[in-house]
Amino acid sequence: MRDFSNDHSALALNTATLGHNVEGFGAGWSPEQVIDSCAARGFGGVVFWRREIGSNAASIGRRAREAGLSVTGLCRAPFLVGPLAPVGRQAVLDDFRSAVDMAADLTAEVLTIVVGGVEPGTKGMAESLKIVADRLSDVCGYAETAGVKLALEPLHPVYGGDRSCLVTLRDAVSLCDVVAAPNLGVAIDVYHVWWDTELAAQLERAGGNRIFGFHLCDWLAETKDVLLDRGMMGDGVADIRGIRGAVEAAGYGGLCEVEVFSKDNWWKRDPNDVLDVLVDRFRAVC
Amino acid sequence: MRDFSNDHSALALNTATLGHNVEGFGAGWSPEQVIDSCAARGFGGVVFWRREIGSNAASIGRRAREAGLSVTGLCRAPFLVGPLAPVGRQAVLDDFRSAVDMAADLTAEVLTIVVGGVEPGTKGMAESLKIVADRLSDVCGYAETAGVKLALEPLHPVYGGDRSCLVTLRDAVSLCDVVAAPNLGVAIDVYHVWWDTELAAQLERAGGNRIFGFHLCDWLAETKDVLLDRGMMGDGVADIRGIRGAVEAAGYGGLCEVEVFSKDNWWKRDPNDVLDVLVDRFRAVC
Repeated sequence: MRDFSNDHSALALNTATLGHNVEGFGAGWSPEQVIDSCAARGFGGVVFWRREIGSNAASIGRRAREAGLSVTGLCRAPFLVGPLAPVGRQAVLDDFRSAVDMAADLTAEVLTIVVGGVEPGTKGMAESLKIVADRLSDVCGYAETAGVKLALEPLHPVYGGDRSCLVTLRDAVSLCDVVAAPNLGVAIDVYHVWWDTELAAQLERAGGNRIFGFHLCDWLAETKDVLLDRGMMGDGVADIRGIRGAVEAAGYGGLCEVEVFSKDNWWKRDPNDVLDVLVDRFRAVC
Repeated sequence: MRDFSNDHSALALNTATLGHNVEGFGAGWSPEQVIDSCAARGFGGVVFWRREIGSNAASIGRRAREAGLSVTGLCRAPFLVGPLAPVGRQAVLDDFRSAVDMAADLTAEVLTIVVGGVEPGTKGMAESLKIVADRLSDVCGYAETAGVKLALEPLHPVYGGDRSCLVTLRDAVSLCDVVAAPNLGVAIDVYHVWWDTELAAQLERAGGNRIFGFHLCDWLAETKDVLLDRGMMGDGVADIRGIRGAVEAAGYGGLCEVEVFSKDNWWKRDPNDVLDVLVDRFRAVC
């Protein structure tokens, strides 16, 4: 297991941590400001959201590389299924390909996929997961040609209804097995998987070459809002170091991306202070 | 699989569905009123909460039996671990034994156990689950002597921090294996397990002789409050009939207990209407 106690070169910032993607929160930093602020602190990478990029993907990607940062990822493909997905198969696929294009222009290492919830008119996960497999199959080749890796992120089961019919790493690896595309893998987010006592076994099943991302945050014991009350590493009950150990034992050696949605706490602070805390916590508790 | 389309003799009411256990909600019915109202509609059983019983357990149990109802269960043992448990091992065990005594006096078929969340000062589930195993081992014999079965209820992973370090049926069956007491089994609640694509396999692993309860409700696609916004059967995205099929295929043939915590909807309605809806939904969608 890597020793981060004096080294945060593997630390990446997901801009959601600064509240940039919700109107009225964060300092309204531009992608360029984010890049410069992370580079100045010795971060290893940065992860953007599509809404922040606009038509400047290529120049933002170049700026990051020149600053010594990887563009670790892009959030995210559209929901592929469920009540919040674009209406109709074609609309989903079109927007999915647009996201792939942006990731390619940005030279993002991966495009993250949150698959969407239970398809209206159906019950349980099975039918929705079949629709997801079908739509993934349709776009994986396009993404491969564009040089973009696709990371399926299983979400916490609390989002099962509306945001993700994919709620365990077990199911995510099974989905990878079904679609069987070389550029399809998984992303592991502490918030979503911390409760799963089967995690290490499923990480081993995935194997290092299918683990495309590792996201850090914490689960607060008394979470007030399951969307926007995530904890900073060390403030909650997740065994972050144990999870990282399992992720690395499975073969992952990439960057660790901090993604803390925290409307009433971290999003209200000065982004400069938040970035400093990230470095401290990354070294101390991750 | 049993056909309930014209038969609701397997339907049991958990009084939480009428909001009785939260001050200011429900019509404030007494246990006797609940028994009479359920019996009049041909329910098969009723499940009470400890706070509703007071010192009248024996007479309430007798009244239920005379009305032709089983006392299907009693909610519940204290949290055994975590931030909301009684302080100290002895306090937990004392209250646990009091709950067993009440279940015995009530002639309740099972005492339900929600194990409690992550023990303060620890991270992840492993250490807390060990504490749970230890405390269960201490009381199982006492309960067996009293003729009380103990049903471990895995809760939805959203409660993992504060209410239940036991969040999958897989872990619940493993806990039964570890403690290995003849009167220790599991209760399956649709709300807590609907997302779990491994459910049927774990039910089979449990086996019918360790499935002590089956709870009905639904998961609303856009749940507003994970504690008190449960759906009535048919209103959500859970594959209720599929889950019941798997529960029965594993060997369960007991009552089906409706437990809908719904502060802003069902708890605001006339309890008589709610009971009528239960019968309709049980026959139509369960």
